[in-house]
Amino acid sequence: MADSSAPTRVMMAVNESSLKGYLHPSISCRTAFDWTLSKLVRSNPGGFHFLFIHVQVLDEDGFDDMDSIYASPEDFHQMKQRDKIRGLHLLEYFVNQCHQLGIKCEAWIRHGDPKEVICSEVKRVQPDLLVVGSRGLGPFQRVFVGTVSEFCVKHAECPVITIKRNATEAPQDPVDD
Amino acid sequence: MADSSAPTRVMMAVNESSLKGYLHPSISCRTAFDWTLSKLVRSNPGGFHFLFIHVQVLDEDGFDDMDSIYASPEDFHQMKQRDKIRGLHLLEYFVNQCHQLGIKCEAWIRHGDPKEVICSEVKRVQPDLLVVGSRGLGPFQRVFVGTVSEFCVKHAECPVITIKRNATEAPQDPVDD
Repeated sequence: MADSSAPTRVMMAVNESSLKGYLHPSISCRTAFDWTLSKLVRSNPGGFHFLFIHVQVLDEDGFDDMDSIYASPEDFHQMKQRDKIRGLHLLEYFVNQCHQLGIKCEAWIRHGDPKEVICSEVKRVQPDLLVVGSRGLGPFQRVFVGTVSEFCVKHAECPVITIKRNATEAPQDPVDD
Repeated sequence: MADSSAPTRVMMAVNESSLKGYLHPSISCRTAFDWTLSKLVRSNPGGFHFLFIHVQVLDEDGFDDMDSIYASPEDFHQMKQRDKIRGLHLLEYFVNQCHQLGIKCEAWIRHGDPKEVICSEVKRVQPDLLVVGSRGLGPFQRVFVGTVSEFCVKHAECPVITIKRNATEAPQDPVDD
């Protein structure tokens, strides 16, 4: 079983911790990334190529900008710049990890509804596998929220792996995830 | 990144073609198996350990036994024996493939509702990953049928990969799958 074929292209949707102002990857996507490295990539970094996508939702209610006043187009421009920098910080974390392990990767930012954008990026980029972390919501929350992972399993045009966060890793306050 | 850790334990739920009397693996589970070998195992057979489970549903309507007459307890015993032999044939296909590739594996048969049994076996055996093939039903069929893969993604206590069959691989008659 020679490994002469092209590397397995693994697309991974990553997001920030939802704790406002907190610049780190969410627990769910770090769990998914670490799991993929230890259980799938294992000792074969040359066999895989990671594609990180971060989808930014425009913060319509402006919750994390409550102390800001938008008085000019320039204010909005600055807000967008700040979002972009945050997204780049997030992607930098994953790109650095891959670089240290000798795994090739690419990373980019898109805007819109995460579940729709992820599926359209799968269509465009045609990875071998899509990895999505999941917060493992209970049935009650699931009915009303509808998770990104469930949508992707149904609609993404490639195999999808759903990695639930361990119950022990759930933050005390859900907003910290 | 040394591969000194224990192999990744991959549980795979396999089933027969639903064409009555046809003893081969279904297109969905062969697709899922082949994909897992080429995209995840790649050149690292020692890094993976496969666990094949085949769940048999008792054929309550007896469709494939329409020419049989059940007149004694012995008749039912023979029917069960025949089911067991069919299940063993199915598992033999996967065990042989693994053997040829130098991948360690185990295989066993259980009875009951496939989705419930698969999830309870995940709880008991604690694999690192569950692989489920999916026929990729359209939204209409999905609402009424409810697929094994969807249930497992929600309820199995480990990461789950759903591998849809390609549209081009769909048999002309759905019963041939």
